[in-house]
Amino acid sequence: MELQCPMPQLDFEVITLGHGSGGLLTNKLLETGVFDLLKNEYLDQHHDGATFTLQGPLAFSTDSYVVSPIFFPGGNIGELAVNGTVNDLAMCGAIPRYLSLAFILEEGLMMQDFWKILLSIKFAAERAGVQIVTGDTKVVERGKGDKIFINTSGIGTLHPQAQISKSRVQVGDRILISGNIAAHGIAILSLRQGLQFDSEIQSDTVNLNHTVARLLDQFGEKIHLLHDPTRGGVATVLNEMARDTRLGVEIWQKQLPVAEDVYGACELLGLDPLYVANEGIFMAFVAPEVADAALEMLRADENGAEATIIGEVVAAHPKQVILHSSIGGKRVVNMPLGEQLPRIC
Amino acid sequence: MELQCPMPQLDFEVITLGHGSGGLLTNKLLETGVFDLLKNEYLDQHHDGATFTLQGPLAFSTDSYVVSPIFFPGGNIGELAVNGTVNDLAMCGAIPRYLSLAFILEEGLMMQDFWKILLSIKFAAERAGVQIVTGDTKVVERGKGDKIFINTSGIGTLHPQAQISKSRVQVGDRILISGNIAAHGIAILSLRQGLQFDSEIQSDTVNLNHTVARLLDQFGEKIHLLHDPTRGGVATVLNEMARDTRLGVEIWQKQLPVAEDVYGACELLGLDPLYVANEGIFMAFVAPEVADAALEMLRADENGAEATIIGEVVAAHPKQVILHSSIGGKRVVNMPLGEQLPRIC
Repeated sequence: MELQCPMPQLDFEVITLGHGSGGLLTNKLLETGVFDLLKNEYLDQHHDGATFTLQGPLAFSTDSYVVSPIFFPGGNIGELAVNGTVNDLAMCGAIPRYLSLAFILEEGLMMQDFWKILLSIKFAAERAGVQIVTGDTKVVERGKGDKIFINTSGIGTLHPQAQISKSRVQVGDRILISGNIAAHGIAILSLRQGLQFDSEIQSDTVNLNHTVARLLDQFGEKIHLLHDPTRGGVATVLNEMARDTRLGVEIWQKQLPVAEDVYGACELLGLDPLYVANEGIFMAFVAPEVADAALEMLRADENGAEATIIGEVVAAHPKQVILHSSIGGKRVVNMPLGEQLPRIC
Repeated sequence: MELQCPMPQLDFEVITLGHGSGGLLTNKLLETGVFDLLKNEYLDQHHDGATFTLQGPLAFSTDSYVVSPIFFPGGNIGELAVNGTVNDLAMCGAIPRYLSLAFILEEGLMMQDFWKILLSIKFAAERAGVQIVTGDTKVVERGKGDKIFINTSGIGTLHPQAQISKSRVQVGDRILISGNIAAHGIAILSLRQGLQFDSEIQSDTVNLNHTVARLLDQFGEKIHLLHDPTRGGVATVLNEMARDTRLGVEIWQKQLPVAEDVYGACELLGLDPLYVANEGIFMAFVAPEVADAALEMLRADENGAEATIIGEVVAAHPKQVILHSSIGGKRVVNMPLGEQLPRIC
């Protein structure tokens, strides 16, 4: 990627406090870097905000990204920040359109690293079909931040067939998952702990909006709820859904898609993959009559080859998630208390 | 304010990493604090984003707030984060409607301080007439942040009479300023340096959207451009405008409104008030035929008692800002290089 967009000649190599001042140094940083790279008619307004016209009901979402380390197998904090907010909008049943982009840089960040992150942001936004229309750059003193934090907020237009709401989840709904779980969390943790496996475990970070849009095109209101199991993993999404709807959930361990190397790493680290963070998969609660067709469609999708139906919504044991284990037992899957892995996203 | 909304009984006094995990601790923090306090139909959806319908052209803006210290005379980082983004939307000619709210908390932040900040956010949002509809909470390890950083992004609907754009600024436009300059920057700096003055200098942080809306109601398209002179102060706004429009600017020092105590502090600190940050004033570039009426209207407004016309846009010396000094001389007002005062907002 770097080859396609070489870093412009700059007379500074590291970010300093002055780059966040709003003066000439900020202008230089933005003009030579950000604005040229992310160029579009809205960002080019260079005003305090962007103005545009959108039709119909909208979705609005925000996330701050503090992942550590900022570069990891399969991605970096830049594309994570774009994909994460794009996916949150998709989970609302929306077509993501415009993103804001706000940096908190730590004094001393290498400009080369910032450039790599900017490039990833650019390409991730292009893949997702969104435009970055407004932004902000702040710089904090060394030791008051951690290289780079990114906030993205996003606006999307609701898909015309989407009717996504917790209140639409019903007994009998099938629970689909779009791909292998736990890859992102294990990729980050392996790196932090310096673990080596036969093959490098990569984060699954990817934009899911096109996949979700195709599903909504086809199945519309039969898709009751969508969620991406990021922090807290699949177990947290299921527990929150059960708590808020006062329904029960049953899932089957043997249906849970986990790549072999990730499964091995989880065993080694004593982690339950159900609680590990993901960045490139989603869960769909769908009416039983379309479950098989939705699964088939997902499996034919570039982001759904490993999709499965992991369980269903039940009337029994309200607010509780029950796992049927591979060896025939049953156990309650609780909400995690804290985090196994801080700063995973 | 605290008396009206006492902090709920909690079984923790400080923020820990687990509060950013997405698990039970995050839920506890949000349920007992944030959600109850900021309650509204959108936030209550508890989804990855909020959905709503808005009519007409929109404005979208974002800012991350890293001000240090987080509490200062006249305000704190919470209301600053609401007012700042509300004002950015107002400067686009928009009626601010919905905000997102994303926290990056440092492990060890006192829950009591977080509560005070949340209360300020609540009251600032109420004053501005905006709703906080979606949010995010991350926690970073001690020494990897600085107590609390806040990102707010905002969506507004364009005022039907607004036609705000740099391209509409013309030779002859009068430059109005809505109030005394340099208060915010001096309030923060005095605190940092432990300076004492006869009276405490307070930040001017306030929401300007209602004032701007009244101005647009009355003068519509005659208001060509709006800007709030935050980081980099009045000098930066004037220089950016001159650079982007290739027009010149002349201002008169004796017209610049500066409170006496702030002026004294600037002299003491060797700062030019033109470069000091503001958080509660704005500049309007208006057609000459409405300048006096707009000034009169501003002066009658709760946020405009000290408003003046500080200068005008000229064809001479394109891209240059010239100050006519009180004693009859002239000098160029340059763009500042870096920042006198890092982390001012």
